[in-house]
Amino acid sequence: MPHPLFSPEVRMMLAEENAPGLREFCESLHPATVAEALDDDFTPEQLWEVISQAEIRTQAAVFEYLPPATQVEMAEKARPQMGQLLTKMSHDDRVDLLKRLPGRVTESVMRLVDEADRKDIATLFSYGENTVGSIMTTDYAWLPATATAAEAVDQLRAQAPDKETIYYVYVVDDAARRGDGSLAPRRLLGVISLRDLILAPRHALVRDLMETDLVTLRYDQDKEAVAQLFARYDFIAAPVVDDSFGLLGIVTHDDVLDLVQREATEDLQRQAGVGPIEGAYLEAGFWQVWWSRGKWLAILFILQMGTINVMAHFENDLERVTFLMVFVPLCLSVGGNAGSQAATLVIRALALGEFRARDWLRVFRREILMAAALAAGLGALSVVRTSFFTPESVLVKLPPGFFWNLNAAITGAVMGICLCGAVIGAMLPLGIKALGRDPALMSTPLIATLSDVLGIIIFFNCVRLFFF
Amino acid sequence: MPHPLFSPEVRMMLAEENAPGLREFCESLHPATVAEALDDDFTPEQLWEVISQAEIRTQAAVFEYLPPATQVEMAEKARPQMGQLLTKMSHDDRVDLLKRLPGRVTESVMRLVDEADRKDIATLFSYGENTVGSIMTTDYAWLPATATAAEAVDQLRAQAPDKETIYYVYVVDDAARRGDGSLAPRRLLGVISLRDLILAPRHALVRDLMETDLVTLRYDQDKEAVAQLFARYDFIAAPVVDDSFGLLGIVTHDDVLDLVQREATEDLQRQAGVGPIEGAYLEAGFWQVWWSRGKWLAILFILQMGTINVMAHFENDLERVTFLMVFVPLCLSVGGNAGSQAATLVIRALALGEFRARDWLRVFRREILMAAALAAGLGALSVVRTSFFTPESVLVKLPPGFFWNLNAAITGAVMGICLCGAVIGAMLPLGIKALGRDPALMSTPLIATLSDVLGIIIFFNCVRLFFF
Repeated sequence: MPHPLFSPEVRMMLAEENAPGLREFCESLHPATVAEALDDDFTPEQLWEVISQAEIRTQAAVFEYLPPATQVEMAEKARPQMGQLLTKMSHDDRVDLLKRLPGRVTESVMRLVDEADRKDIATLFSYGENTVGSIMTTDYAWLPATATAAEAVDQLRAQAPDKETIYYVYVVDDAARRGDGSLAPRRLLGVISLRDLILAPRHALVRDLMETDLVTLRYDQDKEAVAQLFARYDFIAAPVVDDSFGLLGIVTHDDVLDLVQREATEDLQRQAGVGPIEGAYLEAGFWQVWWSRGKWLAILFILQMGTINVMAHFENDLERVTFLMVFVPLCLSVGGNAGSQAATLVIRALALGEFRARDWLRVFRREILMAAALAAGLGALSVVRTSFFTPESVLVKLPPGFFWNLNAAITGAVMGICLCGAVIGAMLPLGIKALGRDPALMSTPLIATLSDVLGIIIFFNCVRLFFF
Repeated sequence: MPHPLFSPEVRMMLAEENAPGLREFCESLHPATVAEALDDDFTPEQLWEVISQAEIRTQAAVFEYLPPATQVEMAEKARPQMGQLLTKMSHDDRVDLLKRLPGRVTESVMRLVDEADRKDIATLFSYGENTVGSIMTTDYAWLPATATAAEAVDQLRAQAPDKETIYYVYVVDDAARRGDGSLAPRRLLGVISLRDLILAPRHALVRDLMETDLVTLRYDQDKEAVAQLFARYDFIAAPVVDDSFGLLGIVTHDDVLDLVQREATEDLQRQAGVGPIEGAYLEAGFWQVWWSRGKWLAILFILQMGTINVMAHFENDLERVTFLMVFVPLCLSVGGNAGSQAATLVIRALALGEFRARDWLRVFRREILMAAALAAGLGALSVVRTSFFTPESVLVKLPPGFFWNLNAAITGAVMGICLCGAVIGAMLPLGIKALGRDPALMSTPLIATLSDVLGIIIFFNCVRLFFF
């Protein structure tokens, strides 16, 4: 979202080469507001021209708020201060950027960065795609347990300007050497909030003030766990540790909010049978979107071909009671709709961690009863529908005395298909979860396709039961 | 999610009337952990028994983390300390609780609360359901602009124990009297983070340190705006103001995370055609879920009845080429699938504020092109399909020399229906948005239903074109 108010002004200042004006613009507004104003078809050269007028810290702050694609374009035309800018960026954001750059650009940019930062970048780079490590930052405030509250505040004054958050301070022991002589991460002993430090008597020891009932994340956990943890504990940040409780970094609330938004988008898209799309929808390349959508349409098309063979199997019935074919789309749609409802509810509840192990039987029983209750409701509607709203063209073709057979066949099919759709919609995600796979694989179009195949079988069996 | 480790232990301590043990349990663990352990079929009386052993501040903290339904049950059996407990609860959480209580319970509980808290509750109570006011808290730290940094920290020491967050401190002017003699809210002048207060020289004035380029929320804005704001600015909290910039309260990051999770759940459910379900899926009443699902199944069933009349309209064609009916479910499913993909992508992009006003034409053009490109891909697949995989039973009924007509009719129908599904899937949400309504009203089953009706028309027209 651009900031329509400022971008024309920036354009004018660029044309006039008004450096003090551009500097004032960068320094006086919130960096996010500056970045929004700049997200408006400026060239990378123009963007560098604008932010170069500001202090390097402001440059880094504005740069972080620019869309990833813009960051990449700017890095490809990097100015000499790029190295310094990377030093001032949040440690997690700069790794995200470097992951997006083409290899040769990464190399040339890395040459601008000093030794310590290079090591930090390499470490964060090494964590797996979907792990907690991939969204953590190494930018945290820490203290030894032996400090007093007053000393602690002084130490934070020295550390803070470079830290992403100082609101939780991590208390660690002295670094130990590993067998091979390298330093192991410092062991996490406790945590203390800046609030508690401020409220404490000046001479109290951090050791006595700190919270030792720690809630931690492991660097190799799936990052989905993070959202559940933050939602439960209302954290601003949470520490990430290794096997021996060595502190590796922290995950901060803003990254969790982004994560939750992104995962919700992914879930919504997957539910509709769309492969993952990187970034904003309109920014994504045309053929990337085409492939994400087309791939699934093709898979579903191929699976749905099953309906042809099933229908062909009932070819003779079809010829005998062709007039009943007008009810097929209606009956099949019931299964798809009931199935997507059930699948969505179950998949979301699983994602939010709402089911406990001992709940499974309860979920199973409840979904069966729910499917039956929904089928009963739709059945009632179907009786009304068939009794009063069957088109004349169907009625004239009905063998004499078969009016109630028609009603029974259609209502039976509607109820059977509804029951079957709702049951497979609820059970398939649970089954897949039990196999240890991601239940969201069962997208609703996939459920609808399966339910269509079963629906045709149910439909023709009801027809056979009441007509032949 | 319960904490399976602690609940048996709690049960044992309750049976033994081990008050010191229960006190230790409540005080030494994180309140969220205590609440989890207690979320395990304890009676309200037992829950009161457990938490009553702890300090009132701990009682309030644990109580806040209990599920809403449990809070209500406990309030109905309120102990005398309920009033004190409400005083210590976050201002927003206690209003959420009171909103859930039956009228007579609210009244009796309110009698336990003192004047100032009663007024605060009444104010928060008065904000509309979906407004920013409904998720804000009046629990914030504030300062006059004339204080020095050192005085500011001292003042915070005095205010902080009762404040939900002291990490941002709001700088306000003196309270002014309104025409009617009542006090107007203090006007918001600026904001300063606790971090900046700590880093500042002791004698610097708050007035000179504070940030005055403020990003604020209005109390009557739609609460959806909050998520976008926090995602953009990485806030821990944001101030809420009235028309004359009077500070009414703040919205904090943890409430925003809850909001985003809840809205994502709602969006997922709506997309699958499920009415809103309050709270966790398994906790919701059976008949409440039945109605949320059944209502939509019924509406879709009634709309889908349109397919019967449209099919009946083509009755004569149907009789002449009955063998082609086996292709109907396949062709219709293509429209539903393409439509749900497009609708989901567009609705989500709208919800995240990704489209700008000037993008509309671009979205329109792109979706048309995308629909055409997807139709082309599926068309190719359909030619292969029809050429090689048409069942024998269909081929024998085909008039001689009509093999390529069959191929053209089916492929034409697949392409036409895909194009039509994708276009209406993308355009209906955009159209509804343009009318100022919520685009998520266009749930994917609704799109699928509309696309079925149009799909039948396209199918029979293709058949007529190539067969009669």
